[in-house]
Amino acid sequence: MRGNTFGQFLTLTTFGESHGVALGAIIDGCPSGIKLSVEDIQHELDRRRPGQSKLTTSRKEGDNAELLSGVFEGHTLGSPIAVIVRNHDARSKDYDPNYFRAGHADRVWQDKYGRRDWRGGGRASGRETIGRVIGGVVASKILPEGVNIVGFTRQIGTIEATNLPDTLTRDIVDQHPTRCPDLDAAKRMEEDLLACKEAGDSRGGIAEIWVDNIPRGLGEPVFFKAKSALIGALTSIGAVVGATLGDAHHDAQTPGQLFHKGISGSGKDAGISPAANGIQGGITNGERIRLLVYFKPASTVGSMATSGRHDPCIIPRAIPVLESMVALTLADLFLANKASQM
Amino acid sequence: MRGNTFGQFLTLTTFGESHGVALGAIIDGCPSGIKLSVEDIQHELDRRRPGQSKLTTSRKEGDNAELLSGVFEGHTLGSPIAVIVRNHDARSKDYDPNYFRAGHADRVWQDKYGRRDWRGGGRASGRETIGRVIGGVVASKILPEGVNIVGFTRQIGTIEATNLPDTLTRDIVDQHPTRCPDLDAAKRMEEDLLACKEAGDSRGGIAEIWVDNIPRGLGEPVFFKAKSALIGALTSIGAVVGATLGDAHHDAQTPGQLFHKGISGSGKDAGISPAANGIQGGITNGERIRLLVYFKPASTVGSMATSGRHDPCIIPRAIPVLESMVALTLADLFLANKASQM
Amino acid sequence: MRGNTFGQFLTLTTFGESHGVALGAIIDGCPSGIKLSVEDIQHELDRRRPGQSKLTTSRKEGDNAELLSGVFEGHTLGSPIAVIVRNHDARSKDYDPNYFRAGHADRVWQDKYGRRDWRGGGRASGRETIGRVIGGVVASKILPEGVNIVGFTRQIGTIEATNLPDTLTRDIVDQHPTRCPDLDAAKRMEEDLLACKEAGDSRGGIAEIWVDNIPRGLGEPVFFKAKSALIGALTSIGAVVGATLGDAHHDAQTPGQLFHKGISGSGKDAGISPAANGIQGGITNGERIRLLVYFKPASTVGSMATSGRHDPCIIPRAIPVLESMVALTLADLFLANKASQM
Amino acid sequence: MRGNTFGQFLTLTTFGESHGVALGAIIDGCPSGIKLSVEDIQHELDRRRPGQSKLTTSRKEGDNAELLSGVFEGHTLGSPIAVIVRNHDARSKDYDPNYFRAGHADRVWQDKYGRRDWRGGGRASGRETIGRVIGGVVASKILPEGVNIVGFTRQIGTIEATNLPDTLTRDIVDQHPTRCPDLDAAKRMEEDLLACKEAGDSRGGIAEIWVDNIPRGLGEPVFFKAKSALIGALTSIGAVVGATLGDAHHDAQTPGQLFHKGISGSGKDAGISPAANGIQGGITNGERIRLLVYFKPASTVGSMATSGRHDPCIIPRAIPVLESMVALTLADLFLANKASQM
Repeated sequence: MRGNTFGQFLTLTTFGESHGVALGAIIDGCPSGIKLSVEDIQHELDRRRPGQSKLTTSRKEGDNAELLSGVFEGHTLGSPIAVIVRNHDARSKDYDPNYFRAGHADRVWQDKYGRRDWRGGGRASGRETIGRVIGGVVASKILPEGVNIVGFTRQIGTIEATNLPDTLTRDIVDQHPTRCPDLDAAKRMEEDLLACKEAGDSRGGIAEIWVDNIPRGLGEPVFFKAKSALIGALTSIGAVVGATLGDAHHDAQTPGQLFHKGISGSGKDAGISPAANGIQGGITNGERIRLLVYFKPASTVGSMATSGRHDPCIIPRAIPVLESMVALTLADLFLANKASQM
Repeated sequence: MRGNTFGQFLTLTTFGESHGVALGAIIDGCPSGIKLSVEDIQHELDRRRPGQSKLTTSRKEGDNAELLSGVFEGHTLGSPIAVIVRNHDARSKDYDPNYFRAGHADRVWQDKYGRRDWRGGGRASGRETIGRVIGGVVASKILPEGVNIVGFTRQIGTIEATNLPDTLTRDIVDQHPTRCPDLDAAKRMEEDLLACKEAGDSRGGIAEIWVDNIPRGLGEPVFFKAKSALIGALTSIGAVVGATLGDAHHDAQTPGQLFHKGISGSGKDAGISPAANGIQGGITNGERIRLLVYFKPASTVGSMATSGRHDPCIIPRAIPVLESMVALTLADLFLANKASQM
Repeated sequence: MRGNTFGQFLTLTTFGESHGVALGAIIDGCPSGIKLSVEDIQHELDRRRPGQSKLTTSRKEGDNAELLSGVFEGHTLGSPIAVIVRNHDARSKDYDPNYFRAGHADRVWQDKYGRRDWRGGGRASGRETIGRVIGGVVASKILPEGVNIVGFTRQIGTIEATNLPDTLTRDIVDQHPTRCPDLDAAKRMEEDLLACKEAGDSRGGIAEIWVDNIPRGLGEPVFFKAKSALIGALTSIGAVVGATLGDAHHDAQTPGQLFHKGISGSGKDAGISPAANGIQGGITNGERIRLLVYFKPASTVGSMATSGRHDPCIIPRAIPVLESMVALTLADLFLANKASQM
Repeated sequence: MRGNTFGQFLTLTTFGESHGVALGAIIDGCPSGIKLSVEDIQHELDRRRPGQSKLTTSRKEGDNAELLSGVFEGHTLGSPIAVIVRNHDARSKDYDPNYFRAGHADRVWQDKYGRRDWRGGGRASGRETIGRVIGGVVASKILPEGVNIVGFTRQIGTIEATNLPDTLTRDIVDQHPTRCPDLDAAKRMEEDLLACKEAGDSRGGIAEIWVDNIPRGLGEPVFFKAKSALIGALTSIGAVVGATLGDAHHDAQTPGQLFHKGISGSGKDAGISPAANGIQGGITNGERIRLLVYFKPASTVGSMATSGRHDPCIIPRAIPVLESMVALTLADLFLANKASQM
């Protein structure tokens, strides 16, 4: 099973261990003629890099991207795009091969494979997501001009954002290190996380993603519906324990006659449902796609957590990873759709 | 994109429209030598069939399975298993090609493909899940003896099951037409659904699935983690708007030190975490897998719903479909795992 | 491994055993809006059917296609197209489960799977190709208007066609039961095959396929080059022991300066090479694709062969199967190409 | 379409342009616990490297492998194995973006993608095969102990090897720069190639591959038969214009009664056919697999060829690439087979 490859038309293959020589990504199936530079990639890698604020791990990694292939004279060639990022600040002596950390992948990985790279989580480390962010940059450039994918922190622990603007950009979200655009909630989240860090505690929460201006018609029934493709992609990220189209927890309790208010009939937009959160019958309807992503609290707690090389809550740094998985999924469905009509 | 094929090692391909000649499934990659009969398949099809109780649609379909290939002398051959189910009670005159129902797939399907089989939802109908149930029967037989996959109704609208036994079987769940094993809640759900039917209203809710006795080590990092494979599979079902490993809505709010209570260390089970709901680092840890599946309220409301050929809540009939998707996913990961070690 | 599915964008899944209930095919990935009828399919099935002439097996099968899904109001829906053909004239008593025929798949199939459907070769029978012909019909309709795929018998045993017209149609080829368009050679082949049938002997030979009017640019480097995709597809047919782009046996011995006569330079067609047989660097160049397909002599010889239900040479009946595999491959590459450019 | 990925269970993804920063390979699906070092890889890269003898191009590339991931403490981890080779001796000024060389991929690549890396063939260069050789090393280690894959030069132009030993090793083959183990023919081939180089002429020919000690039962009917998988893999290499199982050109002309001499019956080896060249019904029978691979003459002729950075015949250097594709195919089928039985 190609466990390290994502996508069918646009494929992302990632590789690399946390304390190995390098991590990286190969993107295949990217059309030719797309403007792409190493700076585009670096910009997004910097958004997920450790050490951005005092809320994140103190591991120091420049995470410098090197572009090895697939781009020539500033444009994609149609051949595989290979990018690597070398590891530098790996402190392997902090880890013990015979010690299995609760809540981590250590034990099951050891049992499944009979061995593991025990240094810093090996392949199961969050550093694996570097490859996803690289892929997300390429994917974003395949999507039509104007498609806007923005993720943000909706809830950390029990602190919830309640005051959200109607539209968002990544710049707005990035203004606060929590990546929560409700600045009042953001402030309380920050205080909570700093206290967590001190106490060796950790937090889960909920991220939210909005996709605007996506064309109607993306999604391949019945097993690659836009909703399942997106949700499957998002839940492949470590610490994510679920994802829903819209606020499913709420919608599941709403009576049908209240929930379904779309206009039936025969006009151009008849049948489009505002409650659908952008996806009907598994296919995008052109409206905003809204996704909620649930995170369990970070696994490293207690004395290990206070040593300082861990994030008390990974959601802020995970936002670019979530956006990347959404971009990869939608670009894959976008290319699929091109081949589904004459 | 192979939108109608699920799985990588064990593949299920489904086909068929709601009012077409037949629906069916091809299962490929099933090992040879497994006992399988058409009766095994019929038994599960009967569990999802319409008309089981007054809570379900009045469409009358025997849903009789015909086994065309892949089985000989009562055992699988290792070749593709083909099964078809013919449609009988299709009342196409109830539908209008130029009328697009809100909340349904009609409009986006028309826009994506330029045409559609407008009779009864065509390929987007819930009848498509017949093929999934067929596949689930085969998948269940590939999994090791003792693996127990049981789904049940946890919540309908705002009525929640609160009194659940420690272990469950499909027979216990099937004792009540709501498939809720908390019989007190079940009774209230039934009353609510009968009132809904009368009023042309509909209900969403939450299903839950337990998987017991699954071997440790299933799941392929990093993009086919057991959690994302399961959640992606479950959310490919119509009306499902999200799925979570455990009660993510609750866990996301729990502090890390409270949540993570597993024993770290070096023993055989050191590192196994009770809060993991059976999956750590994307790989099964041998404990119970617990999944929650969120359903939006059924799309057909108002006068169309009172005409009687629709379920006011599809969760009871969806339970065998959920179980099937879980079985297909785990069997796929089980076969993948066989090839991942020397 | 999806051993019974061919293609990546356009997929064909076949199923069925020689003496089972039915054989059939599912085609997925076919764009919507293509005219397709069961008669189109039946027409090609009739071209491969047994009993067309005294040169073929006496097994009597009408091979009637039944279309189950994916087509509505005479056009494809974009959903899977399912077609089945029921078996009728299966004389299972002619076979013995404990007898393994030399040159056949019996022994290795038994050893691989631990069991087999021993009746008439089971899944390893030539009847499996029914599904390929069904798929080929759909594939042909996806290719641009004017693409012309014609196969013919070039050599049977040591008798070779030497007098070939510049252009060919399937109708011209079908004029003689040997499907050799050199009618003088065809006559000698026919005599040879009738003598073979009498003597319980069999013949191999060489088929040739021409593809005209194919667009430039099909083929996906580096592992799905048009040449390897075509050759891999053709050699997946039973009794085929090799395939070459052009007459490789001859070309391998030709000096480079003689072989390479194309015009280098900068014009629109500069770089196109007449000796390339339509494919350069793995990509179609718009010229005629010419393929040779080598068949070993039919496996059934001696007393089993004289009993009458076997073809002394399968090439004439294999021609529609070869054409189908070429159509499937090129349609797959055609859809792939649509997704490879912005 | 994943045009740069080979295999289903064991996947090889290659990347890189001839004059780009680096070429490389990712191998996914390799089981954990296999001994693997960078030296193993380097050894095989050295066998395909330019500049081994005066028969090959004078481009000077050390082709030094750097292992980035997937191996820890000398063993595979079960995670992706990434290896890169940097380009050094790239003389891009020898090439002109507006000049299209006959017989090369230049023109069709330009037309397909709208642009190309015109320096040294870009992605269409023979340097692409570096990734295949890297993959082949890993694949060889997955196959059971004792499996022996040896390729050799059977014919160059019209000079044919006639005196071959019954068994061969790579060391024996490598004793002569032509990689022809018939040393008398080898000497004549060498003279011919040196004359070619002088004259700016080139040669095609035939390579042969023997696989010994392969287990019975590999091959996935009906579309991934061992024969089509192998032949499809071999013909994906540049300049290869066909491949056959055994000497198909000869066998196609042999009468069936002469060709089929296996013993029918009920014993353990009844049904195994000596003429099958190791594959029956698409499945390995445990006997030697024998494959012939046809090469057209090298494309670069005339004044470009005499400039010295081209091989007059690529077969000698292609031998390790052929062996690699065979190893990759068989390892893929070997892993597939592990999942096909309970």
